[in-house]
Amino acid sequence: MIKVTLVGKGTVSKHLYKAFSKAENIEVVQTLASRGEITFEAIEEESDIYIIAISDDAITSVSQQFIKSKKLIAHTSGSAPIDHLPRENRRGVFYPLQTFSKEREVDFKTIPICIEAERKEDVELLSTLANSISNAVYKISSEQRKSLHLAAVFVNNFTNHLYQIGNEICKKNKVPFTILKPLITETAAKLHTLSPIEAQTGPAMRNDQKTIAKQFDQLKNDKQKEVYNILTQSIIETYEKKL
Amino acid sequence: MIKVTLVGKGTVSKHLYKAFSKAENIEVVQTLASRGEITFEAIEEESDIYIIAISDDAITSVSQQFIKSKKLIAHTSGSAPIDHLPRENRRGVFYPLQTFSKEREVDFKTIPICIEAERKEDVELLSTLANSISNAVYKISSEQRKSLHLAAVFVNNFTNHLYQIGNEICKKNKVPFTILKPLITETAAKLHTLSPIEAQTGPAMRNDQKTIAKQFDQLKNDKQKEVYNILTQSIIETYEKKL
Repeated sequence: MIKVTLVGKGTVSKHLYKAFSKAENIEVVQTLASRGEITFEAIEEESDIYIIAISDDAITSVSQQFIKSKKLIAHTSGSAPIDHLPRENRRGVFYPLQTFSKEREVDFKTIPICIEAERKEDVELLSTLANSISNAVYKISSEQRKSLHLAAVFVNNFTNHLYQIGNEICKKNKVPFTILKPLITETAAKLHTLSPIEAQTGPAMRNDQKTIAKQFDQLKNDKQKEVYNILTQSIIETYEKKL
Repeated sequence: MIKVTLVGKGTVSKHLYKAFSKAENIEVVQTLASRGEITFEAIEEESDIYIIAISDDAITSVSQQFIKSKKLIAHTSGSAPIDHLPRENRRGVFYPLQTFSKEREVDFKTIPICIEAERKEDVELLSTLANSISNAVYKISSEQRKSLHLAAVFVNNFTNHLYQIGNEICKKNKVPFTILKPLITETAAKLHTLSPIEAQTGPAMRNDQKTIAKQFDQLKNDKQKEVYNILTQSIIETYEKKL
């Protein structure tokens, strides 16, 4: 049985709590809120792992409270390196690479968990913990994790913004955005059989300047024009290099 | 029984052929290649509908061959207006809004089909045809269709390019792109319960300049920096307006 204390009461902590509670070999002994009550003294029972699921900025100060602990302390951040945790501790990272919302249930089995620790036995402990809730566990260094997190900004944050622009164009022209949802789903699903470079289609890939000029004129919003322009140029350059 | 002749032997035509062949009330009487043999005289048997599934540029010239026909002629383009077909004909549009690849099977039941025709009986004929293969049939004008097609460039072509950039960042830092796939799937799936404006997360949405500056520095490629910059600015402006 692995005893876990969760520090933080945000969305990631709540989803981890649910996933850990379902696992047979994990016991969540306590969940500490990230403000006020977090001191080592507030801990009711020692755990094997303290998982600090709080905002990047707060990791260093909050983790200072656990300096007295002899147990493993792991944060859940994609971008903070492992050494944002106190060097006096056994340190680790337990980063679930997914977009979490309060409103949506997630299936942890499919969520990649990137783990990192300094000692071999801590890597094993994190690995056991991660494998209890997920089928996709990866050992990833702080440097690699930072780049994964950056790539995630492109494929998640920026992609969602493109959906938002698509939605705006639909609204302006009084067509339901729903019509685009099967296309959005298939665009993502294609990656299971094709690489993005193979899956690319459209006027920019063909360097079809006539269609590009027409579509550019169709856009009435300057910001949308800029996004159209930069992404079109980037696609053209990608395929020029390839040829 | 609706008799259909398909004109064009590209990817869209092939997928339509498969879908029509499975439908009980549709008979594909002939498929004509888009080059050479397309003349009205090449037609072996009159159909109820001629579906011209060829590139936008060729629609006007190829459809001229069907001027003598008294039957409905429909193209499958997202961006060409209905009047790219000869005015002497009964004209229509049958636009399946999806990204097709030769390599991937598609489930036509979920693919939105946007139909348009000038006569009431032709709208009904296209509607019957579309409903035989899809559960998502929409009457859409040429102007609306053009804007849907433009929105599709953002949510499909541009989104796929962001996947490509994500892939490049992973390669450069020796992490498998596969780790990002569940995130990509969930980013698309979220739209079933949240609008894109509700689903947005990340440093740009929070206007977190510290993280933005760090991530920008992490990028080594000028084109990626430009894409990062424009999309970040666009997200910041979107949420400024909202506040």
